[in-house]
Amino acid sequence: MKYGHFDDKAREFVITRPDTPTPWINYLGSDEYCALISNTAGGYSFHKDPKDKRISRFRYNNVPADRPGRYIYLRDEASGEYWSATGGPVLKPQNGKRKSKNYKYECRHGMGYTVIKSEYNGISTEAAYFVPLGEKMEFWALKVKNNSAGPRRIKIFTYLEFCLWHAEMDMTDFQYTLNIASAVNEGNIIFHQTGYAPKSGRLGLSYFGCSKKISGYDCDREDFIGRCRSESNPEAVERGRSFNSTASGGNPIASVSLALSLKKGGTKDVVFSLGVAETKEEARSTYSKYLKEADVYRKLDELKTCWAKYLGHYHAETPDPEVNSMVNIWNQYQCRTTFNWSRFASYYEAGIGRGMGFRDSNQDILGVVHAIPQRARARITELAQNQFKNGSSYHKFFPLTGTGEKGGYSDDPLWLVMSTAAYIKETGDIAFLSEKVKFVDGGPAPMYDHLKKAIDFVLSEKGRQGFVKMRFADWNDCLNLGAGNDVAETTWVPELLYLEIQEFLTMANLLERAGDYEKYSEAAAGIKANFNEKAWDGKWYIRGIDKYGQPVGSAGCKEGGNIDLLPQSWAVMSGIADGVRGLTCMDSVKRLLDTEYGIMLISPPYTEYDEKLGAVTTFAPGLKENGGIFCHSNPWAMIAETMLGRGEIAYKYYKAILPATKNRMADIHLTECYVYSQFITGRHNKNFGRARNSWLTGTAAWNFAAISGYILGIRPDYNGLVIDPCIPKKWKSFRVKRVFRSATYEINVKNPGGVNKGVRSLRVDGMKIEGNVAPVFNDGRVHKVEAVLG
Amino acid sequence: MKYGHFDDKAREFVITRPDTPTPWINYLGSDEYCALISNTAGGYSFHKDPKDKRISRFRYNNVPADRPGRYIYLRDEASGEYWSATGGPVLKPQNGKRKSKNYKYECRHGMGYTVIKSEYNGISTEAAYFVPLGEKMEFWALKVKNNSAGPRRIKIFTYLEFCLWHAEMDMTDFQYTLNIASAVNEGNIIFHQTGYAPKSGRLGLSYFGCSKKISGYDCDREDFIGRCRSESNPEAVERGRSFNSTASGGNPIASVSLALSLKKGGTKDVVFSLGVAETKEEARSTYSKYLKEADVYRKLDELKTCWAKYLGHYHAETPDPEVNSMVNIWNQYQCRTTFNWSRFASYYEAGIGRGMGFRDSNQDILGVVHAIPQRARARITELAQNQFKNGSSYHKFFPLTGTGEKGGYSDDPLWLVMSTAAYIKETGDIAFLSEKVKFVDGGPAPMYDHLKKAIDFVLSEKGRQGFVKMRFADWNDCLNLGAGNDVAETTWVPELLYLEIQEFLTMANLLERAGDYEKYSEAAAGIKANFNEKAWDGKWYIRGIDKYGQPVGSAGCKEGGNIDLLPQSWAVMSGIADGVRGLTCMDSVKRLLDTEYGIMLISPPYTEYDEKLGAVTTFAPGLKENGGIFCHSNPWAMIAETMLGRGEIAYKYYKAILPATKNRMADIHLTECYVYSQFITGRHNKNFGRARNSWLTGTAAWNFAAISGYILGIRPDYNGLVIDPCIPKKWKSFRVKRVFRSATYEINVKNPGGVNKGVRSLRVDGMKIEGNVAPVFNDGRVHKVEAVLG
Repeated sequence: MKYGHFDDKAREFVITRPDTPTPWINYLGSDEYCALISNTAGGYSFHKDPKDKRISRFRYNNVPADRPGRYIYLRDEASGEYWSATGGPVLKPQNGKRKSKNYKYECRHGMGYTVIKSEYNGISTEAAYFVPLGEKMEFWALKVKNNSAGPRRIKIFTYLEFCLWHAEMDMTDFQYTLNIASAVNEGNIIFHQTGYAPKSGRLGLSYFGCSKKISGYDCDREDFIGRCRSESNPEAVERGRSFNSTASGGNPIASVSLALSLKKGGTKDVVFSLGVAETKEEARSTYSKYLKEADVYRKLDELKTCWAKYLGHYHAETPDPEVNSMVNIWNQYQCRTTFNWSRFASYYEAGIGRGMGFRDSNQDILGVVHAIPQRARARITELAQNQFKNGSSYHKFFPLTGTGEKGGYSDDPLWLVMSTAAYIKETGDIAFLSEKVKFVDGGPAPMYDHLKKAIDFVLSEKGRQGFVKMRFADWNDCLNLGAGNDVAETTWVPELLYLEIQEFLTMANLLERAGDYEKYSEAAAGIKANFNEKAWDGKWYIRGIDKYGQPVGSAGCKEGGNIDLLPQSWAVMSGIADGVRGLTCMDSVKRLLDTEYGIMLISPPYTEYDEKLGAVTTFAPGLKENGGIFCHSNPWAMIAETMLGRGEIAYKYYKAILPATKNRMADIHLTECYVYSQFITGRHNKNFGRARNSWLTGTAAWNFAAISGYILGIRPDYNGLVIDPCIPKKWKSFRVKRVFRSATYEINVKNPGGVNKGVRSLRVDGMKIEGNVAPVFNDGRVHKVEAVLG
Repeated sequence: MKYGHFDDKAREFVITRPDTPTPWINYLGSDEYCALISNTAGGYSFHKDPKDKRISRFRYNNVPADRPGRYIYLRDEASGEYWSATGGPVLKPQNGKRKSKNYKYECRHGMGYTVIKSEYNGISTEAAYFVPLGEKMEFWALKVKNNSAGPRRIKIFTYLEFCLWHAEMDMTDFQYTLNIASAVNEGNIIFHQTGYAPKSGRLGLSYFGCSKKISGYDCDREDFIGRCRSESNPEAVERGRSFNSTASGGNPIASVSLALSLKKGGTKDVVFSLGVAETKEEARSTYSKYLKEADVYRKLDELKTCWAKYLGHYHAETPDPEVNSMVNIWNQYQCRTTFNWSRFASYYEAGIGRGMGFRDSNQDILGVVHAIPQRARARITELAQNQFKNGSSYHKFFPLTGTGEKGGYSDDPLWLVMSTAAYIKETGDIAFLSEKVKFVDGGPAPMYDHLKKAIDFVLSEKGRQGFVKMRFADWNDCLNLGAGNDVAETTWVPELLYLEIQEFLTMANLLERAGDYEKYSEAAAGIKANFNEKAWDGKWYIRGIDKYGQPVGSAGCKEGGNIDLLPQSWAVMSGIADGVRGLTCMDSVKRLLDTEYGIMLISPPYTEYDEKLGAVTTFAPGLKENGGIFCHSNPWAMIAETMLGRGEIAYKYYKAILPATKNRMADIHLTECYVYSQFITGRHNKNFGRARNSWLTGTAAWNFAAISGYILGIRPDYNGLVIDPCIPKKWKSFRVKRVFRSATYEINVKNPGGVNKGVRSLRVDGMKIEGNVAPVFNDGRVHKVEAVLG
């Protein structure tokens, strides 16, 4: 626990050192306003769209990392010494020794807020950063306390570097963009105004206000920082006086300064607010609402209450505290973040190219539908609007501008079936299937038809060997077998198709569409027969067919990639596997792909570029899809193992990639140990165990599905809440509190016989129930569920 | 002279402080391999194309500026103290005082090389950076000398951060690109290999070699720099030992280390080489050619000789040393740089979007055709290949990939006529007009036809008022009157068209195309009549017609922009102005647009966004095209003034933007005072006088044309060298040595009567000549020309 620890009671992760291996960040904000913040207050903000409405600037992959951010400098007016309230960018007090013992630091990342504390030479600070509910803005609420023996005079300087709205132009078109900005101070507010899609002239207005009267300001970066300096030693701070600069072109910033006189033991509050508005009047009006610091802290309490309520929809108590920290707090929190921002903007996603992913957002539904079913419904509707009449869909779309892009991903349309099924199982809202939703290129049709068209489209893409044409790629973006040819096939999409047809059949039944039921049952049977005839490699299923008609992911492959995780897990998950083949292929996974840090996607990795395989072969061995532990695919193996009844293996897989377990090896893992990363480096790379690309990954939603729905085994179905755990034998019991269709189920699972799986008896509110489904109550009340395994 | 001075004898600019107001840079390299380097060794390199084959990385608009670069650290093995051989990135010796008196520094930017010297605590260094002729690589040649009283042991560390080839992906797609690199050390060479258009798998190979045996290396940035550190304090340097890291994914670098033992007074040489190759064998072979340091310095001498020869084509001795420094050395040098790299890659152009400009490169011909006519011919041919059969052309193109983009710029095609005329006047190569060149979309046609089609295309774009349709823009990229409409017109393109038709008529005559001569004479007459009828505003010419049919650049405009420089200068330059209107409009320029720092493009600037005017109104007042002193347009006014015979005004305009004059006000001007910048901030901005976007600007070629061809007044024509100076009255004489069609003309101009203009007598080799044209000799010999004004 070198860098921090969980504080589950406060629902916080506590970071005890500024020098984490990578910036350990948090996402603040609502669905509209998003603020990324690191443990040393680095990061950036945007409104609605990180490409078109970027509020503040971030230098990705920078040296040093994590610049710039939401900085607060403190300067002792007597000595001239200055430091940071947030552990950086002034890393050490300027006049102290290299490891200044008297600088104290703590960062608490909470649900939608981050508090960073410092103490130096008798001055302690507490900076709370958060986005208040219902506003397009963020607060930086600072408390300063004088713990020293006499009065102190401390000058505060802020630093926020504005982005010139259009993040891509801001990063690339300097000869243009460095001439469009305007930033001025008016009273205690700095306004930054410029065309946010500059050549179109659309106007962007942001503001930075201070709750107290300021004594100086800077709006021009070069003036504030000074020549040959950086955020670590700005000239204005060093000399102790703002330059009162305005920005007319150049790099606009928001720096205000004010002096605080602190009596011995005295405390002062000051709140800074950063936001967007349509007009200056709107900005001033919002700013004026929060001039009393107490009102600001009330908004923080409101936010905490809101999150407590959110997390109250699901709460587990298992014998494993790491499981509890993750499933009750951080996994759900990460799920909400991926739901909000898909794979759009992070410290590793520049927020300019990816937009909201069609397949991504459909999967992200799995992580939030239990808590915010109505938002999930709205998102599914939005996703369906990104589908075309022929059943295909955009691969990604940009909500602010309404534009989208296709890309030839053979799996995309099917995920809409999955998310819709998940929503209806959670809510019982079968009427949703009759809701009419537009296509990109055509008038409205019932959701049921959207799903049918999705399936029809993929059925129409049948390849020469009866699988599905690969096109550019499937879920594995980098396995580009079908780029530029019509020959290559994917064996995994048939599995997904098979599973989603099963989901669809249930819905067809519910709507009494007998004709559809018959037609698609037959289609599914054909897919299954062909799959088992042609995809079996002897000990596992192959991954696809290349453009020369040769198998990929087969024991016979010469270049590497002999086994691919994907078709094995899905063979079991989807029910497509014949007989014992499911067991056999998952045994192969265990033998050939499993490592102490998780399951590699393929093995062995490819060692040189192969045009017939595509981008996967551009990665160094062990990274990303080329033999990395691609975390998104790990929960599928967990789910498959629970279906096989192998609770020990499922739990082992779950723990292997569980962020909380990485706190013990943070210097290897590097990324945050409270959220999942996109991948962990595989065994074939010198950096085995190192994680990359934290936060925005489908891993979050699927792991929540795996732990809550399959390992702890409580998952909604059309007719009730299924209780079907598959746990380690040593677990004697666990409890789950879950809201389902307005009722609260307090579930107590006992495992007196030390088995992995199998509900022997089920009692609901004391009444014995046949089978393992707790009924729907829909009554807003609490119900006790007692399940005994054995 | 706060930051440096010219050393014309050495053809160098000497910078005496590391902390220049902006990085003061130099361009090293051939037409193929380009290296930008600042006075503290910041900068980056690329091969052939800065977008697709970027060798090393640069962080544009960074804080602090100018990172990373080609760094050499020195570490005293006895004390552990370390510093930079190049003034940065270790800005001050680590253990010294803030202004360490004992750190000495000098940077000499020369023609194709940069030498940076340092001295600290008895150790002096000299680092020479250059791209040798005939190679795809650059040298960092380091000399270290021990001036102290006893022996010293100094450890050297290098630092070069590789770019992952595709510069745009490298800046934006981190979740992908940070997993594709491979860098390893083999012997004394580090190899960086990865797909340079990663998803396509095209392979990029670069190498970094050391001429001496190394004792350690680092290929991984994070290992070398360490956590929470920067280029200013890398962990490897601080601890004094490389980590011997390889890069497998992540950020590859080239850092090698070696210890030098230096006796009292002893000197050691070590050379580092960075280059690209197709294979490791080729890399090793090139590397091995230069293991003896003496061979490397021979290549530097060869380069200097080559440049001396280049500059020998034109040399002036005027009474004004600032004119001499610029016209003989730096202006010609900048012209060659813009010829090589158009507006593609600088410290302000990210090198990913702009490619080679069609109009830009045609104009750049003017700055080099006297020195490298055959290269100019090849470039013109290449440009003609970017023309379409209908006479239109690409606006920009990417030579490496052969792709191009149109953009709706109404002036583009005409510049091909201008460059072709300039080439033929310089060389007499009339046969070039019969040379067959392909169109983008069609088979070959004689260059003559290319020019005719260019004119035809623009003639076909006649607008409702008889000018030319504006389309997206004309030369002023940001005046978007015609974006999205077919109504707006430009009054300036008719001027350009009129001038280029005159050029074309001369060529039609030379080829005896009487029909063409008649047809286009008539067209020109019509253009002139219409122009004078409709574009005259009373005291100047208007700039265009907006989409509502209203004039732009008229005294009656309400929003600003009442007068625009462009149509005034060109009215005179092109000969289109009726009667005294040329004089009247240039008087208006003097009265309304002239400032002490140059001529503003428009006045007054626009103050808010106006959709009918476009991007020009997105700039802050006084910046760029919105009332900035857009330097490219200033020489046109100079030329116009010489045509009006007003030598004082022409010279005043020339000096106002002359970089050499900015050395006196470097803290206002900011950019390099040895090259032109794109613009200087206009009077309406608080930063009046501040320049932006140095180096890559059409200003270079046109100012060379203005000073050499119009002020000093010596310019090639089809039948000889025109001698037609227009100078300040106080100049008593000046001399020019100029190569023209293989002969060398030593021209001595005397001005005994103190006039501005008018050759009274001309003698060539002692013989009196009628008129003011020195004849063509084509004999490779020296000819004396004596001209007397009066």
